[in-house]
Amino acid sequence: MQFSKTEQQALRDVAEEMAEAARAVTLRYFRTDMAVDNKEADGFDPVTAADREAEQAMRAVLAKRRPDDAIFGEEFGKTAGTSGLTWVLDPIDGTRAFISGAPSWGVLIGLDAGQGPVLGIVDQPYIGERFIGGFGKADWARNDVRKEINVRACSGLENAILMTTFPEIGTRAERDAFMAVSDTCKLTRYGLDCYAYALLAMGQIDLVIEAGLNAYDVQGPIGVVQGAGGVVTNWQGKPAHNGGQIIAAGDARIHAQALKVLNQDHL
Amino acid sequence: MQFSKTEQQALRDVAEEMAEAARAVTLRYFRTDMAVDNKEADGFDPVTAADREAEQAMRAVLAKRRPDDAIFGEEFGKTAGTSGLTWVLDPIDGTRAFISGAPSWGVLIGLDAGQGPVLGIVDQPYIGERFIGGFGKADWARNDVRKEINVRACSGLENAILMTTFPEIGTRAERDAFMAVSDTCKLTRYGLDCYAYALLAMGQIDLVIEAGLNAYDVQGPIGVVQGAGGVVTNWQGKPAHNGGQIIAAGDARIHAQALKVLNQDHL
Repeated sequence: MQFSKTEQQALRDVAEEMAEAARAVTLRYFRTDMAVDNKEADGFDPVTAADREAEQAMRAVLAKRRPDDAIFGEEFGKTAGTSGLTWVLDPIDGTRAFISGAPSWGVLIGLDAGQGPVLGIVDQPYIGERFIGGFGKADWARNDVRKEINVRACSGLENAILMTTFPEIGTRAERDAFMAVSDTCKLTRYGLDCYAYALLAMGQIDLVIEAGLNAYDVQGPIGVVQGAGGVVTNWQGKPAHNGGQIIAAGDARIHAQALKVLNQDHL
Repeated sequence: MQFSKTEQQALRDVAEEMAEAARAVTLRYFRTDMAVDNKEADGFDPVTAADREAEQAMRAVLAKRRPDDAIFGEEFGKTAGTSGLTWVLDPIDGTRAFISGAPSWGVLIGLDAGQGPVLGIVDQPYIGERFIGGFGKADWARNDVRKEINVRACSGLENAILMTTFPEIGTRAERDAFMAVSDTCKLTRYGLDCYAYALLAMGQIDLVIEAGLNAYDVQGPIGVVQGAGGVVTNWQGKPAHNGGQIIAAGDARIHAQALKVLNQDHL
């Protein structure tokens, strides 16, 4: 699917309007006492009122501005459309961080044109930072400041800073594969949820490796990282926009090196 | 040592002036390219120009405002004093977060009156949040907003949110003891450095457990947490202001429960 410059800007504007709407809702709930539901019977997957209201706020923007587009949201599922475009929404990525008061959660918005996101947003309302990438470029914005961001070069894993959210990663095999990469990196940091992809897009870190993700966890980040010049695939080097195992790299060279390590025998 | 209300306020003002000075320096360096030295030959303990300049900026405030107090800073060591008070400074706690662009690092200031901090600050310059605690109270401040903060009640570990910075904690035995507590908690989160103590002081989380710390890593956080009504000791329930193994809790009940688990046989 091709987009004119005018169409690209219109889509960016809608995405930012959605992020703004979700920001207002989430900030009203962040660090306040609130009812925390339990999605899973045996597990801990909190869903808050903020989650639901923020998705509703984004859907309201789409109903008005892009009624023909499809929607896939974490909270309210799929809504069909006719344009061939799907907005993929995670109103609060990192609900565990959210309920802990830690500002590493984010509002994620991806615009899937059929083969993955052409546009993505990672918004961190409390810090007040927005990362928006797509159509070959990416921006960072805070208050009235806005500037272009780009990934940084990193030629070898031994110089790379790696991030992931959960030290357990996923299955035992996934953890072993991750640790094999981690062992070759300069530094590994944990716990930043979607904010890690934003740091990658701004050239502050070099790798993000995660597993067990859903489409709505990754489409926003993929849009931002690709817009900033980075590479995102699954652990087999295939498209990652449907979720699962993800590896995002600022430099294609360490993407290739890390893929190789992930797929070695880890004995 | 006793302090009048006037003396308490004067000390708070000096501490905030120091935090302000360090904030200006650290923000000038955060997320810019900078020379990163290597303190340890075989390890990764980056010291940046920001670290050194920020401590110098805080020392300059003390030279002018509190010339008789002693100083113990991470970067420039000990300076003797005659007042019986020692300012314990970590210009950038969480240098690994700092060089990764993650806003979980902080400027730490503790005022030790001989038996640990009577006043402490955790300042996060990029988010723009300051946590200051001492003399029986604690405040949070951001931009022009300032409000009192307090720890929250939590009667049992099964309802507690636990944080620590590094999943490896310290030695194998320390990690096993930590994991025994983690297994009983509702949720464990990693990676937030000193910011975890600030979240505890504001009643967002319930426990922070770490090991291998230095006096300058803990005196600021202890002042904040105690000021907000929390409890901080080492893993033996003894004073923690000289560093080592630390457990900070918002509620004395889970502090006692967690100590018990830490000191079980972990087989």
